Amino acid sequence: MDREYPTPAVSVDIVLLTLEEGGLKVALHRREDDPYRGQLALPGGYVHVDVDVSAEATAFRVLKQKTGLAPRYLEQLCTFAGPDRDPRGWSVTISHVALIPLGELKEVGGGVFQFYDVDQLPELAFDHAKQISEAVQRVRNKASYSTLPCWLLPELFTLTQLQRTYEQIFGETVSRGTFRSRLGIKVADAKPGESADEADILISTDQFQGGNQRPARLFRVNHLCLFKRAYW
Amino acid sequence: MDREYPTPAVSVDIVLLTLEEGGLKVALHRREDDPYRGQLALPGGYVHVDVDVSAEATAFRVLKQKTGLAPRYLEQLCTFAGPDRDPRGWSVTISHVALIPLGELKEVGGGVFQFYDVDQLPELAFDHAKQISEAVQRVRNKASYSTLPCWLLPELFTLTQLQRTYEQIFGETVSRGTFRSRLGIKVADAKPGESADEADILISTDQFQGGNQRPARLFRVNHLCLFKRAYW
Repeated sequence: MDREYPTPAVSVDIVLLTLEEGGLKVALHRREDDPYRGQLALPGGYVHVDVDVSAEATAFRVLKQKTGLAPRYLEQLCTFAGPDRDPRGWSVTISHVALIPLGELKEVGGGVFQFYDVDQLPELAFDHAKQISEAVQRVRNKASYSTLPCWLLPELFTLTQLQRTYEQIFGETVSRGTFRSRLGIKVADAKPGESADEADILISTDQFQGGNQRPARLFRVNHLCLFKRAYW
Repeated sequence: MDREYPTPAVSVDIVLLTLEEGGLKVALHRREDDPYRGQLALPGGYVHVDVDVSAEATAFRVLKQKTGLAPRYLEQLCTFAGPDRDPRGWSVTISHVALIPLGELKEVGGGVFQFYDVDQLPELAFDHAKQISEAVQRVRNKASYSTLPCWLLPELFTLTQLQRTYEQIFGETVSRGTFRSRLGIKVADAKPGESADEADILISTDQFQGGNQRPARLFRVNHLCLFKRAYW
């Protein structure tokens, strides 16, 4: 191993996904600087070796600086590297995917981002379209066997909201019965503190939503777990 | 985005896995240079921006130079980055996992590597133990729903060899019947050119192994496919 060679630029990009009526949306902003000035792009920035303790820390710093946001769910997606992805030269970007409830995003990151349907993207800077496509594939794949979609909901949610979330991620509606059987929900009206599902993921609370007709019980996630079990 | 900050060193490491009697083994070599001189480490090297067209290209170049090897299966694992993983300073390594049949490895890469049981590792340089642990988890996970293990076999193999491969990856032996039902094998004696399994992955050939008692038919892989189906 030697270090005589020039070293590539290293950045972090974040595919920030949220749900808006209609489906999965990605947060994009217009670039203020060259290259690709004025074009839509993912939030991202260079690793700052004097302050960042990891690539994840770079992702959090960039989001905090640009939007004030601190997503509760962030994971490394994969790394894109090569001489052609940035006109400034050989570059490496460590791509991340973050999930955030729309309410939180609008509250904190308001005004910075525009939201685009992940299946109908406009022209994007760099290889950002490819990064989004990888991120969506990862999220849909993990959603099919885990409670990952819960990170797109507020901390407390109804079972109907959870069902809509899965439906919007997969772009497919199912009956209430089918949904509940897929998630292994056994007691939709479990006592507060008890679990509603076979895998003990959804914990019942003593709070309800909607008062006029039939108020719906609110649930929270016990823990994020990836199962060897097909949910969808 | 700015480039006033010093940029981290960028390297590629390869977790080269093979099967030897007893289970999954990783290929390690002793480092000739500081840091960690004399310690066991994964093969790896810096990205050379003047010759490499991608991180994958760096991986192939490094393996070719060090061992003459060109593994048929190589995928990006994940990226490890931070100020503490290398005493020389902030560094990024794009970690890859490669699978290679033992025969091929001994033939070409002979003498360079020593092989260690992935579940009983000695002390290693850098964060290489962590990289191996991630790689093994990835391979075991993908093996449970794909034909990934076929890349650890020669191009032609018997169903018994395939069964031993799965068993060695998972460290668990199963009966012939259980194995065949898990893989969805319907016709163990399919005609040459036809498939032996429900998913059309294993293609029968007109070649056999072993002549004295009952010669076993040799199969090849139709394509590498990742299924939403539990194999193991």
